[in-house]
Amino acid sequence: MTRWWSDLVFSSKEEYEGFCRRYAQLPEGVRASTVRFGFAPVERPDRQLLMDLSLVVLDEPTVRWAARFTSSAFPGVPVRIGRAMQGRPIQGFVINNRIANVGTAHGEEYALRVRERVGEAVGIDPGLLVPSSTGIIGWELPVERMCEEAGRLAAGLGSADGVALARAIMTTDAYPKLCAVPVGEGMLWGMAKGAGMIEPHLATMLVFLFTDVEVDPEVLDGTLGEVVDRTFNCISVDGDQSTSDSVFLVSTARRERVGEGEFREALERVCGFLAEQVVRNGEGTGHVVRVEVRGWDDEVARGVGKAVVNSPLFKTAIAGCDPNVGRVLSAAGAWLGRRGVGMRPEGVRVWMADQVVFEKGRFLLDREKEVLLSSYLRATAMEPSGKVFPPHQGLVDVRLEYEEGEGRAVVLGSDLTVEYVHINADYRS
Amino acid sequence: MTRWWSDLVFSSKEEYEGFCRRYAQLPEGVRASTVRFGFAPVERPDRQLLMDLSLVVLDEPTVRWAARFTSSAFPGVPVRIGRAMQGRPIQGFVINNRIANVGTAHGEEYALRVRERVGEAVGIDPGLLVPSSTGIIGWELPVERMCEEAGRLAAGLGSADGVALARAIMTTDAYPKLCAVPVGEGMLWGMAKGAGMIEPHLATMLVFLFTDVEVDPEVLDGTLGEVVDRTFNCISVDGDQSTSDSVFLVSTARRERVGEGEFREALERVCGFLAEQVVRNGEGTGHVVRVEVRGWDDEVARGVGKAVVNSPLFKTAIAGCDPNVGRVLSAAGAWLGRRGVGMRPEGVRVWMADQVVFEKGRFLLDREKEVLLSSYLRATAMEPSGKVFPPHQGLVDVRLEYEEGEGRAVVLGSDLTVEYVHINADYRS
Repeated sequence: MTRWWSDLVFSSKEEYEGFCRRYAQLPEGVRASTVRFGFAPVERPDRQLLMDLSLVVLDEPTVRWAARFTSSAFPGVPVRIGRAMQGRPIQGFVINNRIANVGTAHGEEYALRVRERVGEAVGIDPGLLVPSSTGIIGWELPVERMCEEAGRLAAGLGSADGVALARAIMTTDAYPKLCAVPVGEGMLWGMAKGAGMIEPHLATMLVFLFTDVEVDPEVLDGTLGEVVDRTFNCISVDGDQSTSDSVFLVSTARRERVGEGEFREALERVCGFLAEQVVRNGEGTGHVVRVEVRGWDDEVARGVGKAVVNSPLFKTAIAGCDPNVGRVLSAAGAWLGRRGVGMRPEGVRVWMADQVVFEKGRFLLDREKEVLLSSYLRATAMEPSGKVFPPHQGLVDVRLEYEEGEGRAVVLGSDLTVEYVHINADYRS
Repeated sequence: MTRWWSDLVFSSKEEYEGFCRRYAQLPEGVRASTVRFGFAPVERPDRQLLMDLSLVVLDEPTVRWAARFTSSAFPGVPVRIGRAMQGRPIQGFVINNRIANVGTAHGEEYALRVRERVGEAVGIDPGLLVPSSTGIIGWELPVERMCEEAGRLAAGLGSADGVALARAIMTTDAYPKLCAVPVGEGMLWGMAKGAGMIEPHLATMLVFLFTDVEVDPEVLDGTLGEVVDRTFNCISVDGDQSTSDSVFLVSTARRERVGEGEFREALERVCGFLAEQVVRNGEGTGHVVRVEVRGWDDEVARGVGKAVVNSPLFKTAIAGCDPNVGRVLSAAGAWLGRRGVGMRPEGVRVWMADQVVFEKGRFLLDREKEVLLSSYLRATAMEPSGKVFPPHQGLVDVRLEYEEGEGRAVVLGSDLTVEYVHINADYRS
């Protein structure tokens, strides 16, 4: 996980908005538009909801794009359509929030109808538009209202900047998540919405990455796979993936190509930042936790890291600022044991912050160290202002090293707070 | 999961105690003793804690016993000692609560010293005693105090009944968990402590099962493995197993043998009841949830069931009495997808209580059904009296059927409440 953003501190919403505005410009060859409208869902005609419908158009069709989708066996309609489009040219995205288009009678028909009308309105082949949706599972898209807005959406093309776009894909995200880095003579820009599956009904992480430097499709695909694996696949808010998780990467090839290494580094910086923001942004998140594991092989190391950040007991201890490091080893041991992978306790060393807390088969904890680590946990806690902007980029650092193997993984997760339960339990009551 | 206890309702602590007293008698050939004493742990000399030390002695050494231990790669000292004793004769158990004897410098030495002194005091070979501990991880046993109590413990042998014993192994269990069923001319008696790893520090599920009917060691072992797999291995409070989980089964062979089928049935009834109590007893548990999965093979079916009961989003929805059945399919789909196992949405049917909520690829939810299911969830919620006794044996029933395969699994879990987080986050603050 890239860590170069970690010294950022925001003391007000305005300051964070200023930070976002630095990334308002989209890469060359990318234009966007977004509209907001009200509708009454057919499932709950008594309710009035707001939807943001967004359009991103590339100046020309291109095969220079790659995508990664949820591995869920119960994927949403847009994921199924997007998968089928892989390897073929595209010219843009039609994105909506509020309703995820999963598990309904007319999901596919409605998605195609909206795409048709938007394509006509903007004057491009609808078959070149990738649909993308996030929101409530099990409800139908408000297809009539969405089609009615196609003209306004097309007319506004070019009027939405990156900040407006990053806002328009939010569901109950606390704040927009976007950033950009220079690459060669161009740039790589990215935005994300979501917080794992932390949100009631409103599932999904969506990520859109655009660059104006020329990158070949196979390089886009290979690099994206590699980087997603080290960034978005190494975060875990609640151990669930959604029905609609999607990551898109597009090159408009307006600027000269750069070395593959340079592009990969830029991609990892952007994805690392966005992945961290997805965790940090989670409603109910009180701490962001970084678990680094060394030993075994990469896959086992990642499994151990995820077992720790997903352990409800570890997560609740962190929420309570309790340096209960027994739970780190307990979660790691349980995961390893289930897979029949060995761990000699004598060969394990565990740190929290810069303190060794387990070594040579025994815990190294005394009153003084516990007090020190409690203060550390209080200092790394997010403030309530995190509901509007991320107050800082601080992390709880946990490290587990095993004497055997060269594996390495860094996993980001969050604590488990009373607020998380409230948000997810009380949504409709 | 055996369901024959499900119509029990307790309206007071006294009523539950009366229920327990029915199972106070231990099988023939088993005697018990228990003492309680105060001590100051070396790690926190400023604190005064209470420990219950218990002794169970069989009238004669026997090889008629079997055990299952945690698969954790970081097991406690008693688990390591107990494993090494498998296949050899035993004559009893020395059990303590409060400190689990995991991850300390002198764990093995102290466990053996206590066993030595207790063996001497009661006049049996210490090597025939199985140690068993539950409680705080990372702290040393109060070895001096435990040794001092050996004489009192030996002198009291026969004075503790089943209820006293089931109480003495509790840590922060809400109430004692025990039951017995007749088998042939004898009986099978069992007790359990624990609530998954729900308790801060105080991990561990310990189960002791004694029968006076004669059962051969290999039958004990085979049947125990089979039944544990269908009962204790099918519950999940928070997805964690502890460093010390242990299940012991002993036959004193004082009564005539019975058919293997009859014995298995008795064992499944006792283990099914105790497993359900372990879930029900969990502090912070507001609902017990039973997920039945049919389709695929048994292993996949169990995986799907566990994915559902362990999904934080599903668990929080249940806590909030929100019939958010989208989360059932979302959790199932995510688990299946990660393992590359297919699921055609058209071939899935999902029920909550007796209501079909998903069929033919789409959710079947309307306002009326949602109101009905919300009432159902409110009716199956445990009352706050659950902190002293289980008010009822009601369950939230969820069923997922897939058109392909003959697999079947029934998994028990609990919801995720604000109280759970409080208990686990605020333990030491």
